[in-house]
Amino acid sequence: MSVTLHVVDGSGTYSKREGLEHAPASIASGSKLWIDAVDDDAALAPFLEHELHLHPLLIEDLLEDRPAPKVEDYGTALYVVAHGVVMKDDEICAVEVDIVLTAQWILTHRHGPAAAVESLASELARKPQPLQRGPAFIAHAILDRLVDSYLPIVDAWDDQIDQIEVAVVEKATPEIVQRIFKLKRALQSLRRGAVHQRELLSRLSRGEFPLVSGDALPFYRDVYDHFLRVTDLSDSYREILSGALDIYLSTVSNRMNEVMKTLTLVATILLPMTFVAGVWGMNFDFMPELHWRYGYPVAWIIMLGIGGGMVAWFKTRRWL
Amino acid sequence: MSVTLHVVDGSGTYSKREGLEHAPASIASGSKLWIDAVDDDAALAPFLEHELHLHPLLIEDLLEDRPAPKVEDYGTALYVVAHGVVMKDDEICAVEVDIVLTAQWILTHRHGPAAAVESLASELARKPQPLQRGPAFIAHAILDRLVDSYLPIVDAWDDQIDQIEVAVVEKATPEIVQRIFKLKRALQSLRRGAVHQRELLSRLSRGEFPLVSGDALPFYRDVYDHFLRVTDLSDSYREILSGALDIYLSTVSNRMNEVMKTLTLVATILLPMTFVAGVWGMNFDFMPELHWRYGYPVAWIIMLGIGGGMVAWFKTRRWL
Amino acid sequence: MSVTLHVVDGSGTYSKREGLEHAPASIASGSKLWIDAVDDDAALAPFLEHELHLHPLLIEDLLEDRPAPKVEDYGTALYVVAHGVVMKDDEICAVEVDIVLTAQWILTHRHGPAAAVESLASELARKPQPLQRGPAFIAHAILDRLVDSYLPIVDAWDDQIDQIEVAVVEKATPEIVQRIFKLKRALQSLRRGAVHQRELLSRLSRGEFPLVSGDALPFYRDVYDHFLRVTDLSDSYREILSGALDIYLSTVSNRMNEVMKTLTLVATILLPMTFVAGVWGMNFDFMPELHWRYGYPVAWIIMLGIGGGMVAWFKTRRWL
Amino acid sequence: MSVTLHVVDGSGTYSKREGLEHAPASIASGSKLWIDAVDDDAALAPFLEHELHLHPLLIEDLLEDRPAPKVEDYGTALYVVAHGVVMKDDEICAVEVDIVLTAQWILTHRHGPAAAVESLASELARKPQPLQRGPAFIAHAILDRLVDSYLPIVDAWDDQIDQIEVAVVEKATPEIVQRIFKLKRALQSLRRGAVHQRELLSRLSRGEFPLVSGDALPFYRDVYDHFLRVTDLSDSYREILSGALDIYLSTVSNRMNEVMKTLTLVATILLPMTFVAGVWGMNFDFMPELHWRYGYPVAWIIMLGIGGGMVAWFKTRRWL
Amino acid sequence: MSVTLHVVDGSGTYSKREGLEHAPASIASGSKLWIDAVDDDAALAPFLEHELHLHPLLIEDLLEDRPAPKVEDYGTALYVVAHGVVMKDDEICAVEVDIVLTAQWILTHRHGPAAAVESLASELARKPQPLQRGPAFIAHAILDRLVDSYLPIVDAWDDQIDQIEVAVVEKATPEIVQRIFKLKRALQSLRRGAVHQRELLSRLSRGEFPLVSGDALPFYRDVYDHFLRVTDLSDSYREILSGALDIYLSTVSNRMNEVMKTLTLVATILLPMTFVAGVWGMNFDFMPELHWRYGYPVAWIIMLGIGGGMVAWFKTRRWL
Repeated sequence: MSVTLHVVDGSGTYSKREGLEHAPASIASGSKLWIDAVDDDAALAPFLEHELHLHPLLIEDLLEDRPAPKVEDYGTALYVVAHGVVMKDDEICAVEVDIVLTAQWILTHRHGPAAAVESLASELARKPQPLQRGPAFIAHAILDRLVDSYLPIVDAWDDQIDQIEVAVVEKATPEIVQRIFKLKRALQSLRRGAVHQRELLSRLSRGEFPLVSGDALPFYRDVYDHFLRVTDLSDSYREILSGALDIYLSTVSNRMNEVMKTLTLVATILLPMTFVAGVWGMNFDFMPELHWRYGYPVAWIIMLGIGGGMVAWFKTRRWL
Repeated sequence: MSVTLHVVDGSGTYSKREGLEHAPASIASGSKLWIDAVDDDAALAPFLEHELHLHPLLIEDLLEDRPAPKVEDYGTALYVVAHGVVMKDDEICAVEVDIVLTAQWILTHRHGPAAAVESLASELARKPQPLQRGPAFIAHAILDRLVDSYLPIVDAWDDQIDQIEVAVVEKATPEIVQRIFKLKRALQSLRRGAVHQRELLSRLSRGEFPLVSGDALPFYRDVYDHFLRVTDLSDSYREILSGALDIYLSTVSNRMNEVMKTLTLVATILLPMTFVAGVWGMNFDFMPELHWRYGYPVAWIIMLGIGGGMVAWFKTRRWL
Repeated sequence: MSVTLHVVDGSGTYSKREGLEHAPASIASGSKLWIDAVDDDAALAPFLEHELHLHPLLIEDLLEDRPAPKVEDYGTALYVVAHGVVMKDDEICAVEVDIVLTAQWILTHRHGPAAAVESLASELARKPQPLQRGPAFIAHAILDRLVDSYLPIVDAWDDQIDQIEVAVVEKATPEIVQRIFKLKRALQSLRRGAVHQRELLSRLSRGEFPLVSGDALPFYRDVYDHFLRVTDLSDSYREILSGALDIYLSTVSNRMNEVMKTLTLVATILLPMTFVAGVWGMNFDFMPELHWRYGYPVAWIIMLGIGGGMVAWFKTRRWL
Repeated sequence: MSVTLHVVDGSGTYSKREGLEHAPASIASGSKLWIDAVDDDAALAPFLEHELHLHPLLIEDLLEDRPAPKVEDYGTALYVVAHGVVMKDDEICAVEVDIVLTAQWILTHRHGPAAAVESLASELARKPQPLQRGPAFIAHAILDRLVDSYLPIVDAWDDQIDQIEVAVVEKATPEIVQRIFKLKRALQSLRRGAVHQRELLSRLSRGEFPLVSGDALPFYRDVYDHFLRVTDLSDSYREILSGALDIYLSTVSNRMNEVMKTLTLVATILLPMTFVAGVWGMNFDFMPELHWRYGYPVAWIIMLGIGGGMVAWFKTRRWL
Repeated sequence: MSVTLHVVDGSGTYSKREGLEHAPASIASGSKLWIDAVDDDAALAPFLEHELHLHPLLIEDLLEDRPAPKVEDYGTALYVVAHGVVMKDDEICAVEVDIVLTAQWILTHRHGPAAAVESLASELARKPQPLQRGPAFIAHAILDRLVDSYLPIVDAWDDQIDQIEVAVVEKATPEIVQRIFKLKRALQSLRRGAVHQRELLSRLSRGEFPLVSGDALPFYRDVYDHFLRVTDLSDSYREILSGALDIYLSTVSNRMNEVMKTLTLVATILLPMTFVAGVWGMNFDFMPELHWRYGYPVAWIIMLGIGGGMVAWFKTRRWL
């Protein structure tokens, strides 16, 4: 485990320290503080309980790996679970960040690396304004970076979907269906996460929680807008994929119809002709037409007549 | 970039000037003002920030190209993003107009031409009443023109859908399915935009925002009604297209059934007859019937009897 | 255009006059008044604006042909757009009636004949109570007659649907599918109108509008009940039609299966037999079995044996 | 028509009388009263209007046969339309009971017999407590008995659905589909009624109506629970039937696939073999292989080789 | 029946006794009390009525086996019906626990064993804190253990679903469809129960009921979160199963298409060749080509030419 403290003291000066043990002094001095903890540690739970006085259930939730994004108001502390996403081996993985927000300090906790948090931490050294403005602005900065992790994935899909739309009309192979199904499922999984966070940000940006003050609300509404855009895009992608699937199915069914018509046509023309040829291949002693001078040419005429009649009948039914 | 100012001074006189630099004086003089800005410019952002004192997030949103229509209340300013539509190469494109509304002035911003705004600007010289009545009436005039841009597209679809409905019953070719799918998708894309704006206008016309005063509300409700009509029509078109698709599928499946029945009929009648002909084509030495006087006619009777029996059996099953 | 005035003066006496020009005097005298205007006229718009002092948007809406039923509160006037239905050439057409309701008078406007309004007008001469009780009761009487225009159509469908349900099980021809699709679409179109009016009457009967007084509310609730019944019936008809379509599809697919099984059966039995007959029709010099005494009967036994074996194998697969 | 009066006087004594004419005296004496009226009568309407002072619309509704269950508050009277169900010739029929409830008396009206009301009436002679506690408890007792009429039908379906589930896997005949469709429709019709009544009882049990006092609420909530159970069961039955239908369709489609594969297999193996046999059945003068010593056995080897090759090719495609 | 009493007296000491008869004394002494009753008994009902003074309907509900989870507020007592689940012979069975909660005591009642209750009872001897904190914490502990009974089942499904997803792409046998349908139904049944309880816990954790005090609310919210997770997982499993079914259907339909194409190909190539062979197998006297020197090789060339032409034509249609 590693714990990094970002401190802005009463005079507005930013400093950074490693290790949980420096936190109590910073809090006591009234400094604004961001505690960024990675992974678990024997020391973390007692610190959360005895120094930060967090609710036992909040601590339990924080240390566990929990799925759904949510926001919970514990009075003096606001507990937010938010997710970013990364692509790992063609699979979408959620990156969970737990945030505890009070008027003076903010605690973030995560299992493993989270680009959103790390980029903010390194930026803070240059530009400590968010922490100077207060913990709610640090929370906003993290949420904003989390939603940004959705955008490259959504943009990559945009290209894929365009390809699929073209391919489905031109080739309609089973491989395209596999791709559609795979993309559809990834979409569902991403959308589920984004919808939960959209609801979460809708509540945060409505002014429902006093810890997110009025001047921070437009910033949260901005993040909400981004999540709204992600879910809107997911919805429209899903519709396009459904449409592409319908086109595929209709193309396949048309081709099947053509194949069946060809089979029917060939069989219907040739079976009668073959039968007639079979008849004159019989070995009866008394088959007078076999001995006629023009028997053979007449046989050809009859056979071709049957075939031609069949074709003509097909034309009347508009199958040709 | 170009910026046009439409000013109505205290005595109600309308005048028009080009260039951002004239705006501060007009505002200071208490005149009613419409600032119409096209595209971005280095001068615009500082002007928005230092002269108009807009919120940094509002400025950021305004200058970006953002997708979804929305309304946001920033206290002294109301920020509205609205869309019109134009057809470009058979594709529906959204034309975004950003509107910032205060009690004294209104700012519109857009990337490129927007017929709705331009037609209002040229009309204002002849008829400055909307600006005399206040910025909310300028906003209404723009929204009203934006919704009007939907109507010719919707009307053109009406004809296309009528054609499809007739065609699907008469011909049922795969091309019609392609047209249905294409129209369905354009419908979805247009509907999505219209639904967002309907919600936006529902909020504007409910009297939720003090900047849209009571005497302007019926006008906003009127625009809401127009968007309601657009979404209603989209919904009913979608239902009709779904119905047309069902009819197509049912027609295709009926034809397939006929084809299959024909194949079955022909094969079932001729295979037994061909077999019998094959039997008497065998070269066994001792096949007494081959030497009978009436063997050959009897063979015909037997073969036609089999064929006739098959047809009769089909009739009992009602396949003919 | 024609305008009819129905007046009940202070002493409760009913009288009827033709022509817009008598309206101002009646209003000034404090009489209760119903102005029934058909089609447009140059005189109507100024009258609405200067005598009745209606809002410009209300006048615009009233004179246009507008689709969706709605209710709008303009303070001293309540504006209601309601629809009845008539059957014209097997198509359902909406009959629009616009109603403007104030405490003293009621104005109805329509394009062309509307049975609901006309029957009330002729009844009023015999029974002027609705007008004596006030404009809200005239509005109720019209709405009540409009909903009654739905019932004969719904009842006629009841019979058609019963026929379809029987036919789909017995015959399952493509014609029935066409009828189902047609009825389904008519149902959708009627339902859409009825749902809008149900919502409209739900609002009118909730006491939301002061112009519809408490003693009129139960009457509006009664009309609401009728519309509820119309939409309920439409919903249950739609379910029945969907069920009928499912039965049709399942019947067709069963029949297709039978056809395919027959084809497979016949081909599978006869192809091997025909092959065997073909073998002994070959002209090799040394085919000893051709010269056996019982070669031919044995050939028949073999061929029938193959056929019988195929049938037996089919029976084990339960295809026969 | 028959009218029965159940009276509990001031001293709590229960008595029963036939005929409408005794009602006014009972009401005047302050007794608690249940008036149970069957069918219509010339005397009923005037009685409702002049003695009970009911609203004209309530009277109209009460005497008509109206479909949907509902509750309406007329101030001093509460009007409830509720339904029980009976099975008649395999069809589900609704049994309507209209209830008018005031603080002192309760009126029930029905067209024809209704087991729920009759069983209560006969029980009241032995156990008059419900009437002693007040009209709301009589209404509860009737509603409770009405919901009980749903249970035997729902239970009978439970068995049928179990049978269908087993049958669909084992046999998958078209008859089962007919049964599924029939049951599904009966389910829809029963569910619709039950849902309306669940809503009705939800409102009655919420304490929305002062005529249903606080101590009666738990009893109404209990009836609500029963209706909730009926609709829950209907929903889960519907899901099971949909699942059974899906299994049926999948079974049928699997069988069709097998049939098609068999056909393809047989034709693909035998058509080439038959062609080869046909070749050596030709009558050309110069066909040297016909005169070879081992021509015939070699022909068999070739033909069987072709057949075997086809089978082997099928195996590589996993069709066998 | 067995009844166990868990008592925490005024000094906070925990003790445990068997038998209903000790309950009244404990209640009178003001001790905190958990009465855990299994199965019914003649003594239970009178005790509930006369000692605990429960509402008759509550007692009736408690003793019956009732399906749906719910919460009911009887003023001084809160009645909760909750469910756990166990797997019995591959079937999901609900385990019902009825809970009556007052400020001083809590009563649980169940038919047969319930692991959730028993594990709490045995833990209480070691760790009596929940009872010391009050009845609401005992209720929480039971609900928490009930939701935990869902997790192993859901986890087991996770594996099964992964297997199905792999299998459906690789083999696509009808057996997989049976497994999908079975799992889907088990999912529906589990989900229904979980949704009801999620709603129940949503109400309990909202602070709607005074008997669940503020400091207990976060604990109930935690249980709510667990149920939310169960229903979320069920939903995502259902989507995955639906997706797997779609892939199966698409795979089957692709294979069917291949089979049909093979059949068509073989028949279309060989039928014409067989016909030609049949022609030269006819026995007409005057067929000059039969006597040509190179008649036979030319016949082969013609027949192979027809076959090759068919293959070439197929290639142009992209069927090969």
